[in-house]
Amino acid sequence: MPEKVRIALDAMGGDNGPSVVVGGASLSLERHPDTEFIFFGDEAVVGPLVKADARLAAASRVVHTDVAVRMDDKPSQALRRGRWKSSMWLAIDAVKKGDADVAVSAGNTGALMAMSAFHLRTVSEIERPAIAAVWPNLRAESIVLDVGATIGADAQHLVAMAVIGAAMARVLFDKEKPTVGLLNIGVEEVKGLEAVREAGKILRETAPAGMEYHGFVEGTDISKGTVDVVVTEGFAGNIALKTAEGTARQIGGYLRSAMNRTWRARLGYLLAKSAFDGLRAKMDPRNANGAVFLGLNGLVIKSHGNTDPLGYSSAIDIGYDFARYQLLSKVSQALVQYKGAEPRLVESGVTA
Amino acid sequence: MPEKVRIALDAMGGDNGPSVVVGGASLSLERHPDTEFIFFGDEAVVGPLVKADARLAAASRVVHTDVAVRMDDKPSQALRRGRWKSSMWLAIDAVKKGDADVAVSAGNTGALMAMSAFHLRTVSEIERPAIAAVWPNLRAESIVLDVGATIGADAQHLVAMAVIGAAMARVLFDKEKPTVGLLNIGVEEVKGLEAVREAGKILRETAPAGMEYHGFVEGTDISKGTVDVVVTEGFAGNIALKTAEGTARQIGGYLRSAMNRTWRARLGYLLAKSAFDGLRAKMDPRNANGAVFLGLNGLVIKSHGNTDPLGYSSAIDIGYDFARYQLLSKVSQALVQYKGAEPRLVESGVTA
Repeated sequence: MPEKVRIALDAMGGDNGPSVVVGGASLSLERHPDTEFIFFGDEAVVGPLVKADARLAAASRVVHTDVAVRMDDKPSQALRRGRWKSSMWLAIDAVKKGDADVAVSAGNTGALMAMSAFHLRTVSEIERPAIAAVWPNLRAESIVLDVGATIGADAQHLVAMAVIGAAMARVLFDKEKPTVGLLNIGVEEVKGLEAVREAGKILRETAPAGMEYHGFVEGTDISKGTVDVVVTEGFAGNIALKTAEGTARQIGGYLRSAMNRTWRARLGYLLAKSAFDGLRAKMDPRNANGAVFLGLNGLVIKSHGNTDPLGYSSAIDIGYDFARYQLLSKVSQALVQYKGAEPRLVESGVTA
Repeated sequence: MPEKVRIALDAMGGDNGPSVVVGGASLSLERHPDTEFIFFGDEAVVGPLVKADARLAAASRVVHTDVAVRMDDKPSQALRRGRWKSSMWLAIDAVKKGDADVAVSAGNTGALMAMSAFHLRTVSEIERPAIAAVWPNLRAESIVLDVGATIGADAQHLVAMAVIGAAMARVLFDKEKPTVGLLNIGVEEVKGLEAVREAGKILRETAPAGMEYHGFVEGTDISKGTVDVVVTEGFAGNIALKTAEGTARQIGGYLRSAMNRTWRARLGYLLAKSAFDGLRAKMDPRNANGAVFLGLNGLVIKSHGNTDPLGYSSAIDIGYDFARYQLLSKVSQALVQYKGAEPRLVESGVTA
């Protein structure tokens, strides 16, 4: 790894375009001066934005392309229209070629995942990639995966996600044996949970190194922080993530209107303002922005599409940390070790 | 329907036993004096509790049984041990026999669903029952179903749930054409969503009466109140419900600790106390307690297992409303009408 962390940015991705990407890079550079940026996008728009910030300009170069993946492009359209030439593709390609350590995009998730999987390929130990989110909880933070890469995981995929999630938690949370739970619903013996139950059986019986398997967890356990790593299939994981975001916003709305209702409440709000500001920062989804694609031969970070420079800078920061501490290779190593040591559970009908 | 609403209570169900059930009935009776209760459970425990409340005693009778379904019984165990004789079974049986208009239980969901489905049977137009929750949102309330009855719905089941959810919304929210959305994730063209997409196609093309089909919604849309009815398969629905509950508690925890940190914050809290109290009531999951089993030949309400008398009374209230306004038969009628009028979509490979 070179001395500087080299970050490839899809400058055209996201609902709000290059100004958010450039602004986010500027904020992130303040925190991590050992960063270099490559912006991919329309030079006529991106160039002047970067040049207006002397420090950023000194750490950046802009690579021009006319083509941008649209937010409503389907993955197959994006691949057809945008392969080889779109800003999203070029950012991923920079990672593939070794010109960058990580690619960050706020473009559409399906297209980004399709292009990343197509171009970087999954590591041989895992068939499908996963998206991992760092989720704040009442104790600290946990890692939740998959939050939307693939739908309908089988037991082997759930186990692989447990292994890579635990590897990520070991480094990110500095814990020797992070706890891992499988997301499930309280009802036992219900049809359709075979994969989750089978994965639980495998984790219990094979006891992979570097994690403590906790058992099943429910939706309420995510925010309690019952475990360090919550493993789930991508559909339910995405629903959970977005439902939590929505609920946080809903309660924020309730709180604002409650504090505006009477003069006593308004006065109370003013007195407690710094406490409210702290709370707002804690609830601010921008501070938890940035999900990591795991299982690929290269590092790609997905930012929320409708974020602002502050939120975008969080996504860049996650990419910086992953690149600086070589997290992706540690995660892949854990998977290789697990697959190498994996006992063959022939008697339960599962072969590794 | 008789003049009084007759409610059968599983007095032994729930984490906290008969005192919560009796206390909840007492609170609900204050709001709805036209109620009669039948308590099923251990008379030595339940009898004295009921007798201690003269008004409740006048409106109630207690039917003794020794057997109670345990909170950790698997559905098959519960059926084996508790059929014909447990307090849960007897409450459902009272509905089956016509002795009660509705059964309420805080016992374990899997057992309650298994016994209800076994004894009451699903109405012939739907193969599997669904659990519907009334979910507070930023606008008002929406109905979310299924929150945990069955896992892995096919397109036909999703459509049936849209029809019964809309019927419930028409009466509960007094809207002629409630809006209906299918819960999905933002990513298009991902494997595994065939059922959701196929259901969307059917709803668009057949345009069932009494609803306006909105299209797909995401997790964030639940709390926004984008639609009146959110339809989803039971695994994701249960995860969403519990994740939202957990997030609300998490933010409540943040808020409490923020308001305790400095004297200014504490003073502000005291000034704004009535606003905070209003907020707390609004966020209080006890006020939204009580989920409805839909699709059965009889009305069963599931209360949270670990609620208190206030929460339990909300579940009884939902049962009261459903019975008083004959909601279940309206829901079933809507399903019969829809199935009768349903065009056969032979060209898309789907037959009604």
